[in-house]
Amino acid sequence: MNYTIIANIIGWVLVFEAAFMTPAGITAIVYREREGFALLITMLLCLAAGFLLTRTRVKRKSIYAREGFVAVALCWIALSMFGALPFVLAGAIPSYIDALFEVVSGFTTTGSSILPQVETLPKCLIFWRSFTHWIGGMGILVFVMAILPLAGGSAMYLMKAESPGPSVGKLVPRVKSTALLLYKMYLGLSVLQMIFLLAGGMPLFDSFTIMFGTAGTGGFGIKNDSMAGYSVYLQVVVTVFMILFGVNFSFFYLFLKKRFKDALKSAEVWVYLAVILTATVLITVNVSGMFSSGAEAFQQAAFQVGSIITTTGYTTTNYDLWPEFSKMILVLLMFIGACAGSTGGGIKVSRIIILGKTILKELDYIVHPHNVKKLKMDGHVVEHTVLRSVNVYLALYLFVFASSVLLISLDNFDFATNFTAVATTLNNVGPGLAKVGPTGNFGMYSDFSKLVLTFDMLVGRLELFPVFILFYRNTWRG
Amino acid sequence: MNYTIIANIIGWVLVFEAAFMTPAGITAIVYREREGFALLITMLLCLAAGFLLTRTRVKRKSIYAREGFVAVALCWIALSMFGALPFVLAGAIPSYIDALFEVVSGFTTTGSSILPQVETLPKCLIFWRSFTHWIGGMGILVFVMAILPLAGGSAMYLMKAESPGPSVGKLVPRVKSTALLLYKMYLGLSVLQMIFLLAGGMPLFDSFTIMFGTAGTGGFGIKNDSMAGYSVYLQVVVTVFMILFGVNFSFFYLFLKKRFKDALKSAEVWVYLAVILTATVLITVNVSGMFSSGAEAFQQAAFQVGSIITTTGYTTTNYDLWPEFSKMILVLLMFIGACAGSTGGGIKVSRIIILGKTILKELDYIVHPHNVKKLKMDGHVVEHTVLRSVNVYLALYLFVFASSVLLISLDNFDFATNFTAVATTLNNVGPGLAKVGPTGNFGMYSDFSKLVLTFDMLVGRLELFPVFILFYRNTWRG
Repeated sequence: MNYTIIANIIGWVLVFEAAFMTPAGITAIVYREREGFALLITMLLCLAAGFLLTRTRVKRKSIYAREGFVAVALCWIALSMFGALPFVLAGAIPSYIDALFEVVSGFTTTGSSILPQVETLPKCLIFWRSFTHWIGGMGILVFVMAILPLAGGSAMYLMKAESPGPSVGKLVPRVKSTALLLYKMYLGLSVLQMIFLLAGGMPLFDSFTIMFGTAGTGGFGIKNDSMAGYSVYLQVVVTVFMILFGVNFSFFYLFLKKRFKDALKSAEVWVYLAVILTATVLITVNVSGMFSSGAEAFQQAAFQVGSIITTTGYTTTNYDLWPEFSKMILVLLMFIGACAGSTGGGIKVSRIIILGKTILKELDYIVHPHNVKKLKMDGHVVEHTVLRSVNVYLALYLFVFASSVLLISLDNFDFATNFTAVATTLNNVGPGLAKVGPTGNFGMYSDFSKLVLTFDMLVGRLELFPVFILFYRNTWRG
Repeated sequence: MNYTIIANIIGWVLVFEAAFMTPAGITAIVYREREGFALLITMLLCLAAGFLLTRTRVKRKSIYAREGFVAVALCWIALSMFGALPFVLAGAIPSYIDALFEVVSGFTTTGSSILPQVETLPKCLIFWRSFTHWIGGMGILVFVMAILPLAGGSAMYLMKAESPGPSVGKLVPRVKSTALLLYKMYLGLSVLQMIFLLAGGMPLFDSFTIMFGTAGTGGFGIKNDSMAGYSVYLQVVVTVFMILFGVNFSFFYLFLKKRFKDALKSAEVWVYLAVILTATVLITVNVSGMFSSGAEAFQQAAFQVGSIITTTGYTTTNYDLWPEFSKMILVLLMFIGACAGSTGGGIKVSRIIILGKTILKELDYIVHPHNVKKLKMDGHVVEHTVLRSVNVYLALYLFVFASSVLLISLDNFDFATNFTAVATTLNNVGPGLAKVGPTGNFGMYSDFSKLVLTFDMLVGRLELFPVFILFYRNTWRG
């Protein structure tokens, strides 16, 4: 295990975290909030720890899968542990475990909250809270790699461990260039959304924070009623951008390169859009009686569907009051999630497609045992290692899911609450049903359950293996 | 597709079904119940259809995987469609869909019921209802194969398709001998349980029906309160036998052959027993305050744990009133299920072990990419095809599960009811939580939902592929 380079990488992440707190600090100055000092102290702590760690003399610059996974997991843990400090130091969230839950929910772009009244937070902390979505969406390490020549040529493992999806590859030959390209597109789409929001009359502060939550598919609201108070125009803008940020970024890359034909070949994007359309139509029909017009029902259904499948988690209505069928569609969408290589969470559409294809292949194997075809996606053969890792992902996912529901059931809340609490955190969505529905929050859970759900958010965002490798004995041997 | 031999096999199954109705017919005579005529008419119909089908001139005696799977699925459908008739003809269950639900629940050894008051049924129909558990437990085709030289040497595919578990093999070289051996052990254990029940003062009728439900891990009660009214001795006897019938029958075979060392090497049996012990202890602690003594809590916990993990479904107490943690343990046990090659349902302990091992192997692959070890179980390498089919099984299982919950949610019952209704039918358990808990039943669901759940029971018992192959286009080509 190459400990020195891991320490080095964590150091740089903390330095960047300090830098990322600057906009929140400026917010504090603008609004003359004393809580800005909490941010300042945390920045200094990040810089101190960061510079200390970056001083580590790196013996070898090479990184293998093992180091890549361990580094990513530890970076995210360090990021969260420091990121929670401003809330505690400012006295806004007195319990460190609560603050940790909140900031992990931010970085992992979950958007679940322990706060009953978000509007009582000082603006600078609301800004920091929402900004963690933007940082976590595309990944902090991807950002660091876009700026620094980290870990030489083997940085691919870092990117693989941090980017969501079964087979996220490089867009261009060099990892650094890929990272830079991803952030350029991310920034471009973010700016575009800002323009649309400002054009609709949304205040600047709101536009920034709502954009952070959309771009990162995070979903922290800045109002107690999430997005319900905004105009239909603004809700529609957010709907469209949520769905855009749930698309595989390599799709946008192909579009920018004018390779339209290649872009349109993406089965994942088509299935993703088809699922959104189907779910929206089904819910519209199911809830039509609850709204004044079919158009309103459709707009509300589309917002909730877009919000949940992209694992953003903004809401414009209390869907917990919808009929069971509509609620179940939303719960299913939580599990499906967005496209691989987007900022969204969940199991990912491409994994669902691959699993579906393995089922058809198995039926084919029973019918024609001597005529086994290779499994293909977008015209390419899916490698055996990818297939295997998708299958193992599913098994480990279910293991985490079942264990989490069991553990938090010790608090004796009802099944719908516990089940959707785990579904919404592990898939990085935000709200669930019943007590953790759109009007609820996670504050009522015990510290133990909050830690379980915090763990779920983290393993969900990092897609299980980077975190579980930390607990595997052989990782630390030899 | 070898249609003639499939027709022939279905014919024989119907002839055997008529024969299997004889004990229920005798019950009708003993209790002088007019409903016996409904049985008689059904027997004649079975014989008529059966003889007609067995007259089919079989061109080729060979069966391949495809024919094996199709034959098993169609046999079970035919068996159920005729098996439901006595309830309808006798007027005991006027709706054919209800009767179908009830009898599929019987044959698949589920034990879920649409009846609010089972005690109002005539004895002969209670007998038939419970006897379907015993027939379905070890499998009707396995029985037919034990008696008739069906399908020559390739009958293995029939056995594979009907016997539960990822890699159920032959105990002895010939399929016919294996089938006979399985039924001998099944009968032996059944008789043993009868002796213990009669010794405890249980009436003969009760002993028969309760034994059928235990041996098949079915769980149809013959009283409205299931097993709650029987003495502690009888409850303990049933606990022990439920757990025994959940053990892989090859374990008993090795024991009978005095190959104790081989028998004790079975990881599946050890894990199965460890899960039972752990679950019982955890629940005992969790519910201790609800019983007058720790011993009573333990006995009640052990009964419920044994009943649920073996997917029997008898109850001695309304566990729906237990704390959420205990209920979640029971729900988890529903999914785990019993050992492969037993009469129990669920995902099966051996599949869970294999999935667990694939997770460890994947972590090992990340740490040592160039040093991949083969996955072993009980000292033997697990073949790639077995691994693949376990993985695909899980994917298809989840697909069925999610679709079923979504479809029955149209009836607008609560999440705990719908989720556990599907869990308990797909895993062939019996009772769930909330409205389908120990004191509830499935009568309130719409006909559409009842058909969905009936389908789930069938695909659960036949482990998905035999049923899904019917819907696969290529099955019927060439």
